[in-house]
Amino acid sequence: MAEALSLNRFRVVLSHPSHPGNIGAVARALKTMGLSRLYLVNPRSFPDPEAETRASGATDVLANAVVCSSLTEALTGVTMAAAFTARRRELALPMQWARQAATTLAEAAQQGDVALVFGNETYGLSNEELAMCQLPVMIPANPEYSSLNLGAAVQLMCYELRIATQDLGEAPASFGDLATVDEVEQMIGHFQSTMTASGFFNPDNPKRLMPRLRRMFGRIRLERDEVNILRGMLSSFQFPEKFHKRD
Amino acid sequence: MAEALSLNRFRVVLSHPSHPGNIGAVARALKTMGLSRLYLVNPRSFPDPEAETRASGATDVLANAVVCSSLTEALTGVTMAAAFTARRRELALPMQWARQAATTLAEAAQQGDVALVFGNETYGLSNEELAMCQLPVMIPANPEYSSLNLGAAVQLMCYELRIATQDLGEAPASFGDLATVDEVEQMIGHFQSTMTASGFFNPDNPKRLMPRLRRMFGRIRLERDEVNILRGMLSSFQFPEKFHKRD
Repeated sequence: MAEALSLNRFRVVLSHPSHPGNIGAVARALKTMGLSRLYLVNPRSFPDPEAETRASGATDVLANAVVCSSLTEALTGVTMAAAFTARRRELALPMQWARQAATTLAEAAQQGDVALVFGNETYGLSNEELAMCQLPVMIPANPEYSSLNLGAAVQLMCYELRIATQDLGEAPASFGDLATVDEVEQMIGHFQSTMTASGFFNPDNPKRLMPRLRRMFGRIRLERDEVNILRGMLSSFQFPEKFHKRD
Repeated sequence: MAEALSLNRFRVVLSHPSHPGNIGAVARALKTMGLSRLYLVNPRSFPDPEAETRASGATDVLANAVVCSSLTEALTGVTMAAAFTARRRELALPMQWARQAATTLAEAAQQGDVALVFGNETYGLSNEELAMCQLPVMIPANPEYSSLNLGAAVQLMCYELRIATQDLGEAPASFGDLATVDEVEQMIGHFQSTMTASGFFNPDNPKRLMPRLRRMFGRIRLERDEVNILRGMLSSFQFPEKFHKRD
């Protein structure tokens, strides 16, 4: 992805949704992932206060939702429609898992609008609706309980689309400066001399103590500040009189 | 992943959840992805009929939920805890995106139990709670509206864990037998002869017609049955008298 693809190319279509609360949850799911275009085919109740409540801060998505009387109308202008289905369907096209489908749809969206079509909570999509879509998609789920809530299914797919289209960059890290190898070596030497003085380490019978310490510190990519803290601690064991307040 | 890792190694911990409905949605999210172990630290109201309703068929997850009085108690026995946070935190460890974290946690789960810790809906996790976790995790979201519902956040992470630990295999496909290259070639020849007879194709001035047809059919991986349907159609154009009922 040379440049982040606009998420405005994607519309989410709910066909015959029964529960206004789910419409609200879907609006919120869209907005959290940066989508905004919601189409509703024959919703049982819309607008509805329950939808507003569940939408939380995403009432703008509800306010701009397009209510249609047929799936054909909701798909006007799209060049590809993906149908979400929880089961294998007769005569279906080859299916894709949600993650793979996100890549397919992101590619299609470079050439035109793309629709994600979700069916009724109980009945799913009709065969006629399914036949209007070019890509059947399944979300991986527990085969013994694959009953994903409508809002949850939309959330997962919008999340996949966000990842497939946006450059996330590195996860935010609040690293301090890392210690260099020589600073860590000096610290390990400091441990050794301090433990020798305390009698915990016997240079004539070293066993595996130093390799174990080295292995442990090797795993954690110490920061410079942490090396300084540990060396300060070691110094306090060596020279406690320097660290006690003298008042 | 040589062998599918048991999802029983993962526990989901909700710290101070306010809304019983969210607890139910979380139970459902767990079960859809094959997880089952839910821990609740000081829930405001549990058990609660609202949780039962939103759990849909996942009431077994609620029935087996462990109620704790502190996060320490909920983390007893785990070897790694991941903290979900919507913002960058002071003094935090390096964060991982949810997808990367799923791989990290799947590896950790090979050696012991792993916890996914989610904070209160409004306040998130306290600094003390965060400090008990070894891996801060962020879910990619719209920076202008990152307000993921608690159930939605748990759903996304459980989905990532399912993908990271289970071998999904190929998406279900109900393919018929594919046509072989020679069968497709014969069909294209059939198109050419029929269109020549009808006058639509002029062999003396072929233009780009045959390459265009070939390109189109090349894109759709025809099945044998489809080739037969198309050839039957061509025959009906050539010899309509054979196809009209004679009664």
